[in-house]
Amino acid sequence: MADKARLSLNQMTTANWSVAQAVDGCVRHGVPAIALWRHKIQDAGIDACVRLTRDAGLHVSSVCRGGMFPAPAEQERRKKIEDNLRAADEAAALGADSLVMVVGGCAGIDLDDARKMVADGVAALVPYARERGVRIGLEPLHPMYAADRSVLNTIGQALEMASYYTANEVGVILDTFHIWWDPRVTELIAQAAGRIYGFHVSDWLNPLPDVLLGRGLMGDGVIDNPGLRALVEQAGYSGPIEVEIFNQALWDADPDAVLAQVIERFEKFV
Amino acid sequence: MADKARLSLNQMTTANWSVAQAVDGCVRHGVPAIALWRHKIQDAGIDACVRLTRDAGLHVSSVCRGGMFPAPAEQERRKKIEDNLRAADEAAALGADSLVMVVGGCAGIDLDDARKMVADGVAALVPYARERGVRIGLEPLHPMYAADRSVLNTIGQALEMASYYTANEVGVILDTFHIWWDPRVTELIAQAAGRIYGFHVSDWLNPLPDVLLGRGLMGDGVIDNPGLRALVEQAGYSGPIEVEIFNQALWDADPDAVLAQVIERFEKFV
Repeated sequence: MADKARLSLNQMTTANWSVAQAVDGCVRHGVPAIALWRHKIQDAGIDACVRLTRDAGLHVSSVCRGGMFPAPAEQERRKKIEDNLRAADEAAALGADSLVMVVGGCAGIDLDDARKMVADGVAALVPYARERGVRIGLEPLHPMYAADRSVLNTIGQALEMASYYTANEVGVILDTFHIWWDPRVTELIAQAAGRIYGFHVSDWLNPLPDVLLGRGLMGDGVIDNPGLRALVEQAGYSGPIEVEIFNQALWDADPDAVLAQVIERFEKFV
Repeated sequence: MADKARLSLNQMTTANWSVAQAVDGCVRHGVPAIALWRHKIQDAGIDACVRLTRDAGLHVSSVCRGGMFPAPAEQERRKKIEDNLRAADEAAALGADSLVMVVGGCAGIDLDDARKMVADGVAALVPYARERGVRIGLEPLHPMYAADRSVLNTIGQALEMASYYTANEVGVILDTFHIWWDPRVTELIAQAAGRIYGFHVSDWLNPLPDVLLGRGLMGDGVIDNPGLRALVEQAGYSGPIEVEIFNQALWDADPDAVLAQVIERFEKFV
């Protein structure tokens, strides 16, 4: 159903591959775009990553991830913001569509305070990113990650946070795993028009095998990926569609076979 | 912080106790109210349950649970509605504050269709319940249960569904485990004024040990139970506060010791 020309391999789907291996995999399988993770970028070095993706003609749909702003101590929060500036440098060097924000959880911090720290962190990051032409993509994460990963949990909340900036500075990343359940998903995706910086797909397995590493391949779960894709396209988004699957069984398998399966499922179930 | 006079033992917290044992436990520990589960009611027989709670002078804060409406086949859906009528009979016999709805998940059914089936199921149940003086308490469950347990996932959605009925017919059950993460929780609890039929507490452990059986005792996790209690009380609710903890470790422990600990945590962390 979805055109492979829209596919982007989010590197965590084949977590055991280095940047060089993932780039090579995309080339061999005819996947035109890739999303790189920062720990993998560190391993390879940013210059090598720029050269590898450019030489392969791969589009970089996103750099994952900035964010993780909340911390009890002021000094620690400053350090986290500093790290986000480095992430913006990397996104700029790679020409990525956006720098994805996983904003951080509230464990050890009052929930409202954590949300304020996120707003402050984004405010500190935007001017720096703007100068470098880097757009900030706020990704609402499923509410089950509010304690440990992200206090940004709905599209509505992400749009509110983005509203303080222009549509070229801050937008949203819509991942079907995180948003599929939302009773307001139809109206909220429509409201996101002009601010959708990325679209991610996977599936929700039932029962959920693991809170973090239990995402499924499209077609194996309950998510209506084609329906959500239609809403996102009605809202004007026509960019890359990242397949981002955190799944221990996929990580234990041969990444080359996983990528082949990802493509098959993408064409059938997205 | 909370007064024990407000405490209700939700029977699933001491899942290995029969109704007779749970009633006896409440009496010995000075807990004035109890919430009964239907499979335990079946085991004991409804007449015995009525006699046991009445003789013990225990208030029945709720009967858990009706709902589970969605099903692919019409005949199956009718059977489920029929079962809800029996649940209303039990709630009436026990003089429960409400019959709690865990409305059912969407696995095997389109999400929008499942939500319509829930609305239809509630519509079929309300007239019968009204005649018997039974109030229907819609409990929004955490979004991580949308596939397997409940497509009703936010307070806003529950209030919308309740709005078709009077405030004496259909209301909401607010459980901190399910709602704590919601960025709109403050405004939504205020909007629920006059329709709050029950308030449940437990805690969200970080990391979450298990999707279903990983709830924690109050004080062991990230939830601001006193803050949410204050919001619920500002909205006018002054009824029983149920402690409902699905936790394998607690179930494996001595129920009597668990109840003592529940009381201690209730007075300290709610």
